[in-house]
Amino acid sequence: MTSHLALMSCLLVLLLSLDKFLLHYLKKRWLSGGSIIPRISSAPSKSRRSMAAASAKWSETAMLVIDMQKDFVDPAMRSPMLVDGGQVVVPTVAEAVAVARERGIFVVWVVREHDPSGADVEVFRRHFYSGGKGPTVKGLKGAELADGLVIKQGEYKLVKTRFSAFFATPLDSVLKTSGIKNLVIVGVQTPNCIRQTVFDAVALDYEKVTVIIDATAAARPEIHLSNIRDMKNIGVETPTLEEWRR
Amino acid sequence: MTSHLALMSCLLVLLLSLDKFLLHYLKKRWLSGGSIIPRISSAPSKSRRSMAAASAKWSETAMLVIDMQKDFVDPAMRSPMLVDGGQVVVPTVAEAVAVARERGIFVVWVVREHDPSGADVEVFRRHFYSGGKGPTVKGLKGAELADGLVIKQGEYKLVKTRFSAFFATPLDSVLKTSGIKNLVIVGVQTPNCIRQTVFDAVALDYEKVTVIIDATAAARPEIHLSNIRDMKNIGVETPTLEEWRR
Amino acid sequence: MTSHLALMSCLLVLLLSLDKFLLHYLKKRWLSGGSIIPRISSAPSKSRRSMAAASAKWSETAMLVIDMQKDFVDPAMRSPMLVDGGQVVVPTVAEAVAVARERGIFVVWVVREHDPSGADVEVFRRHFYSGGKGPTVKGLKGAELADGLVIKQGEYKLVKTRFSAFFATPLDSVLKTSGIKNLVIVGVQTPNCIRQTVFDAVALDYEKVTVIIDATAAARPEIHLSNIRDMKNIGVETPTLEEWRR
Amino acid sequence: MTSHLALMSCLLVLLLSLDKFLLHYLKKRWLSGGSIIPRISSAPSKSRRSMAAASAKWSETAMLVIDMQKDFVDPAMRSPMLVDGGQVVVPTVAEAVAVARERGIFVVWVVREHDPSGADVEVFRRHFYSGGKGPTVKGLKGAELADGLVIKQGEYKLVKTRFSAFFATPLDSVLKTSGIKNLVIVGVQTPNCIRQTVFDAVALDYEKVTVIIDATAAARPEIHLSNIRDMKNIGVETPTLEEWRR
Repeated sequence: MTSHLALMSCLLVLLLSLDKFLLHYLKKRWLSGGSIIPRISSAPSKSRRSMAAASAKWSETAMLVIDMQKDFVDPAMRSPMLVDGGQVVVPTVAEAVAVARERGIFVVWVVREHDPSGADVEVFRRHFYSGGKGPTVKGLKGAELADGLVIKQGEYKLVKTRFSAFFATPLDSVLKTSGIKNLVIVGVQTPNCIRQTVFDAVALDYEKVTVIIDATAAARPEIHLSNIRDMKNIGVETPTLEEWRR
Repeated sequence: MTSHLALMSCLLVLLLSLDKFLLHYLKKRWLSGGSIIPRISSAPSKSRRSMAAASAKWSETAMLVIDMQKDFVDPAMRSPMLVDGGQVVVPTVAEAVAVARERGIFVVWVVREHDPSGADVEVFRRHFYSGGKGPTVKGLKGAELADGLVIKQGEYKLVKTRFSAFFATPLDSVLKTSGIKNLVIVGVQTPNCIRQTVFDAVALDYEKVTVIIDATAAARPEIHLSNIRDMKNIGVETPTLEEWRR
Repeated sequence: MTSHLALMSCLLVLLLSLDKFLLHYLKKRWLSGGSIIPRISSAPSKSRRSMAAASAKWSETAMLVIDMQKDFVDPAMRSPMLVDGGQVVVPTVAEAVAVARERGIFVVWVVREHDPSGADVEVFRRHFYSGGKGPTVKGLKGAELADGLVIKQGEYKLVKTRFSAFFATPLDSVLKTSGIKNLVIVGVQTPNCIRQTVFDAVALDYEKVTVIIDATAAARPEIHLSNIRDMKNIGVETPTLEEWRR
Repeated sequence: MTSHLALMSCLLVLLLSLDKFLLHYLKKRWLSGGSIIPRISSAPSKSRRSMAAASAKWSETAMLVIDMQKDFVDPAMRSPMLVDGGQVVVPTVAEAVAVARERGIFVVWVVREHDPSGADVEVFRRHFYSGGKGPTVKGLKGAELADGLVIKQGEYKLVKTRFSAFFATPLDSVLKTSGIKNLVIVGVQTPNCIRQTVFDAVALDYEKVTVIIDATAAARPEIHLSNIRDMKNIGVETPTLEEWRR
């Protein structure tokens, strides 16, 4: 009996914490038949003048595209690292990158690439590596970007070996010496690599950190949303791609 | 209408993800009239022999007590950094420390101590500092440990300036050169300093990371629990103090 | 016979690498009867106008005063960490700090403060710590600043535990978020803490790094000078205090 | 007149600080007609038994081969980063690696590989990068290992972007989780990448750090030797390859 009460009180609390935005988002994402990509073809092209004005703003912004590699998002790879819910955001991530390029935002492709021995992967995952194979081993197919994603000239590829894109990498140095003050983050997965990168970015005092809510994903919606909530609580902005591109 | 459907699907997912343990925990914590401290007085004292055997095990374990300072857990301080739900875990934290001491576990008191200028606090919180005052300023009352918590000889005080106890501190060096392989974590608050420290500990390859679920706290129960869930998902153990002391 | 030849060739190479400046410096420092402090009392005071102009420049500069603690520079402490040649630069360091204050430069006092257990000191030095005592133990006299040096309000005290002031400390964060781009470094000792801090500062892309050659010291002049040479070779400026204050 | 005195006193001090070992080394290196490679063909092969005993010891040792890339050591590349004196040690480095392999030592190839944009190189060197070219740009010939050096299976390639092999890289993590406690270091160049890596290794508490004196090099012998002296002063061992292979 009391366990029912406990449950109800939990649900109540949850309800209260779900704001309109999240409801709207959920509705779109899980009830709309799958398509979560905003229609953008009809967006009116901006005048050259406003683009010039915007370019000043965007030159201090970098987009971090995190872990969008086959072993993380392509079920066909049968990787133990597959993120359920990863594949579905590939088109949104691609679209976010397209917007970033249009705006002249510095695009950084953050990827895991591990030694075939597994010597540079977390110890608790090292059993996945043997015979020169394992998740996102450098040079193997699983380490490639998901189909449809390509690194263009002038964009930066950053190799990491842990959750956070800042852990034991030169990322902060690359960004700060390039005049970057603001970050926009897309990719997978929300509770681990996305969130750790975001919290480190806040600790490293980037002025504005933005996570595009429908260009990031976790294994389950409630995991995604509770992490979005926590990031909002420390000042991170969490628009949809549609809202961000306005 | 569809928004109701969305809500219901969300709740269903939530239900499925709540395992018996969490329900049990919630019931105890929010419905039992407030007391969350396991009764321990009747615990049978262990024989000397088993303690000797255990001591080998515990000599490789450290307990990190995080942010148990007045400005974080004592409402009387009226600090903007107060963690709702922090004060209630002070006794459990004290008890956990007592158990750690009994076992010969290395106790590390992780505290924030900031310069009066605020020059070493996150930029987004720097507006709280002026006139030589602000949350957990070194030397002020708010930076002191909560009443009932004391650093004993042989225990280590580590000063940090960001969420994670490992960020820009010598903590990893202190622990690894002391032969520490396992961490037990208590304190506040779950989504920020606890979780960031935990994820960094995993990235730094500590063999076993344990978060005592009722000796840590967040502003709201659902925040606490969703973060516990995410930590469990990367292999962190999350016993109650009662379970851990067995 | 051949060993004499070897020696001569070594000396020859050394001669060629000693530029006039270093000779001048050596002459002043070891042959002038000890006084290495430039006479400054007769310096004409600058007009208010030029000071205002200068203040813009100096607001982006920080002075790091490194390890000027009794255990490092005061022979009376009988510390195993005493730097021969340290005490003699105390007045020059004091003078450099006075100039920095006059210019509105942000002064950072970098000190070692170790736990009585020695748990946070380099392992190879840990044997110096026992019974709660050891070099620069927090709270003991040896950790205090050398006589004549005082931290004033608005200045920052940074505690480090390794050679480099940037190693496992929030220094880079404090400086960068304070708008600091240039560093001026004084203290002891040249081959270890000074040089490691300088090389890390270069790696961290501070725009201009200056080491005041007669406000830094090593156990022996040739050690001091060879390190000054190496730092010059990576772009560090190495003026005398007299030159820097112009 | 006094400048002559200054000079003489300097030389005297230098003489006193040159121990027999360095003299011996100098004699061999600069007076013997160029060959600095110890003759090893006649070394008696060790019995299988002693090799088994030794393997336990060497399994905790890693060799770091630093910056042995064409742009650093091959004059034909006409790179602005060429280290005078680098090419001459290539055979000794190759020999040291051969010894390491024979002993079962973990070999780590530390290389610089920069983005064509130069975004991850030190700011003060960024002017060398334009049109997709620059020193040790990833994928270009200058980033390749010097002729005669090859990465074998089971060896690790570590990419760095600053002097120290530990700066913003996962090296410490790779080594410590592989059970490595001791480091042997070869490559170029002594005052910068070698020394910074060595000092960081000491700060990171590796138990024994060894620099092979004739498998490392600097632009000029006195630069090499003064840095060897400083490293010896903090406990680093500095044998010749001949001595180390005994």
